[in-house]
Amino acid sequence: MPHLLIVGGSDAGIAAGLAARQHDPDWDATIVLADRYPNFSICGLPFYLSGETRDWRALAHRGTSELTAAGLDLAVDTIAIDLDPHVHRVTVAHDGQCREIGYDQLVIATGAKPVRPALPGIDLEGVHTLHTMADAFAVHERLPEVARVAIVGAGYIGCELADAFTRRDLDVTVIEALPDVLTTVDRDLGSRVRQELTDHGVRVLAGSAVTEIRSRDHLLHVCTDGAADVAADLVIIAVGVAPNSAIGRRGGLATGVRGALVVDRRMATGVPDVWAAGDCVETWLPLLQRPGYLPLGTTAHKQGRVAGPNAVGGAREFAGSLGTQVVQVFDLAIACTGLRHDEAEQAGYRPKTADIIVDDHKAYYPNATPITLRVTGDRDTGRLLGAQILGHRTAQVAKRIDIYATAIHSKLAVDAVNDLDLSYTPPYSSPWDPVQVAAQRWLEAAG
Amino acid sequence: MPHLLIVGGSDAGIAAGLAARQHDPDWDATIVLADRYPNFSICGLPFYLSGETRDWRALAHRGTSELTAAGLDLAVDTIAIDLDPHVHRVTVAHDGQCREIGYDQLVIATGAKPVRPALPGIDLEGVHTLHTMADAFAVHERLPEVARVAIVGAGYIGCELADAFTRRDLDVTVIEALPDVLTTVDRDLGSRVRQELTDHGVRVLAGSAVTEIRSRDHLLHVCTDGAADVAADLVIIAVGVAPNSAIGRRGGLATGVRGALVVDRRMATGVPDVWAAGDCVETWLPLLQRPGYLPLGTTAHKQGRVAGPNAVGGAREFAGSLGTQVVQVFDLAIACTGLRHDEAEQAGYRPKTADIIVDDHKAYYPNATPITLRVTGDRDTGRLLGAQILGHRTAQVAKRIDIYATAIHSKLAVDAVNDLDLSYTPPYSSPWDPVQVAAQRWLEAAG
Repeated sequence: MPHLLIVGGSDAGIAAGLAARQHDPDWDATIVLADRYPNFSICGLPFYLSGETRDWRALAHRGTSELTAAGLDLAVDTIAIDLDPHVHRVTVAHDGQCREIGYDQLVIATGAKPVRPALPGIDLEGVHTLHTMADAFAVHERLPEVARVAIVGAGYIGCELADAFTRRDLDVTVIEALPDVLTTVDRDLGSRVRQELTDHGVRVLAGSAVTEIRSRDHLLHVCTDGAADVAADLVIIAVGVAPNSAIGRRGGLATGVRGALVVDRRMATGVPDVWAAGDCVETWLPLLQRPGYLPLGTTAHKQGRVAGPNAVGGAREFAGSLGTQVVQVFDLAIACTGLRHDEAEQAGYRPKTADIIVDDHKAYYPNATPITLRVTGDRDTGRLLGAQILGHRTAQVAKRIDIYATAIHSKLAVDAVNDLDLSYTPPYSSPWDPVQVAAQRWLEAAG
Repeated sequence: MPHLLIVGGSDAGIAAGLAARQHDPDWDATIVLADRYPNFSICGLPFYLSGETRDWRALAHRGTSELTAAGLDLAVDTIAIDLDPHVHRVTVAHDGQCREIGYDQLVIATGAKPVRPALPGIDLEGVHTLHTMADAFAVHERLPEVARVAIVGAGYIGCELADAFTRRDLDVTVIEALPDVLTTVDRDLGSRVRQELTDHGVRVLAGSAVTEIRSRDHLLHVCTDGAADVAADLVIIAVGVAPNSAIGRRGGLATGVRGALVVDRRMATGVPDVWAAGDCVETWLPLLQRPGYLPLGTTAHKQGRVAGPNAVGGAREFAGSLGTQVVQVFDLAIACTGLRHDEAEQAGYRPKTADIIVDDHKAYYPNATPITLRVTGDRDTGRLLGAQILGHRTAQVAKRIDIYATAIHSKLAVDAVNDLDLSYTPPYSSPWDPVQVAAQRWLEAAG
């Protein structure tokens, strides 16, 4: 039987394996993974740490037996250390022993690794990143002795962790070098998220770059250039991730944006019989018509579902990423898709952006809450380019951004959003859904 | 100033007036309405009767002053009784007096009227329909003396009313001639709605046609052909609506499906300077490429927003209706868009339909609930034709059906739903949203 080898057992790797076996069950598929937690939901780590997810085992998208039943051979605790595509061979290390695994086709799905800034004190005990199950266990184990947490970085993971540790009744400080939190959305929306954090007792130090971490009197002290030192029992570094493309580079694969592996829309690397997917690769951005680096679980699954079947003879194509995201921070949901105004401008569009605040459903039905919608479209073509929504966690913000994402995918004009036959009943919406009211506001806006 | 006359002050009429004035403020606009409640949300009546909406005034989408400020002259309690398009004149009656109103352009937006079957006893005191504010007041006034309610008809209004009266602690029986409730969705899903009703104490008599209503011993007795008589203090007839096209017919306008006024995609009636919109007209059904009768508030707003500007010189086109609907019945949300399998077959497609039950969000995050999704697509072209979703009211069912509605609008294939870059965070979804898992199931399904 021909042999498919997959390096990496998280979203992209598992998706590739399952989709490949579904496409052609005549292929053997082996998945080599660096730890013993295949197919775990990394996005769930904050909820494990908050206590909302009590049993870490529940974080597995699928159990090992289900993966095995689907025909995937799992080699756990196995690290890929070299790749020679000329002889179709990967060198792996397991339990101190090296061995070689041959392949007919190879999928590299080695994911990302958290960025660890070169700060004095970054390696002190009590300073953690959070990207793997091992990271989560290490933090979880420490929690009973922790009263104060400092989180460095206020992206979506930093914000989720601030929420999580607050639920644990810990004293939480978030430190962000940029002027506000959650810079995936516009700054005024980021300010609303910051307000939500502070309303729940989180101390937010924005515009403060960390300069050093010191250990003194059984405490860690996070020193910044803009504020007083922050004392903490635990420091989490959440300043983003970088592609884990080392094994690909060893095999001579090309790298591009931020060192991510270069792939085409079929997820082919250009090196014969080597494919790649997930957080280790560049992602096609259709609105920009160029690749970028945009590591997201949803994208990893989609790319895996393309790479796997293509490796075993399929002909799929990755449609690309709009960067659609949603995050919950306490009672707020914040979502975005496509381009913000400034991004659209930089990309050469002539954007116009309009805002509206409108109830999520008819105000006469109980519990209506105002949501903020922002729509960006191109003045020249009328095309919808992006949207941002912020509202209460009950306001269907996540699936409302998906309506825009579907419209952008389909290259709809902003005006066409008003033609959409969307559902309505007073408990859930209005005769014009908020996504349409925002589109109307965009049309009315000057310019 | 040129004069736009609009007959009808509900969704379509008001939308037409507002959009026309926005398109060209040089037009005078008069709206003639039969009662004194312009722009009231008829969809809100069940919530007023349930007590969830305490003040009926809250049911107004906009207050009279807002409408007046937008330049709309409102003639309330004014019934249009004749139309002569040759001389551009409408005869109206107000307070026992007739008068004529001339127009340069006319929009007919007279809505629908509830169907009153020709049953013995249909005119007895205590037998009501529910379509206008007057209807709602009449029922509301009676409620303090009511212990038992019989609802004839288990469409979405009948189901909402069963929910509403149960919240009032009334004893509720629903009588439906068809074999199950809510026949806008497949029968098995209708059965789930029936179960939800009975779980909350509603008695459901399906497959029972009402033959007569009698008054005896201060009680109404609803007699059926399939079950014992139902005794009630109040009977609500909710067996659907028919187009209120009388004034159009008097003016010589053509009628089509179920007697609705014939219009083109511009909402022109074919009679010079006469336009029509809302529940009194035929609706364009793009999936069937023919008109049908599908009275919905969302459609009325959209058609009004086309008719009004076109009447004053615009060039808009109504995109058509997919029949997207959602209803909440106790803790369930049930939604549909596009064609069901049987409808697709009748329309000449070669449909394939697949089902899946999947959690609305990652099970490791609290309060995940299973939702049922059903996808219908065309075997020959792969095109998405329709979808139905049933789940808990917290499961974003309404906006999930809207993702499908947007995809159908954009003529996407079922497979392309998997390409959509939808938002994900564990509290709201999974890396593949349920709408995508259902699309994958459709692709895997035999045939």
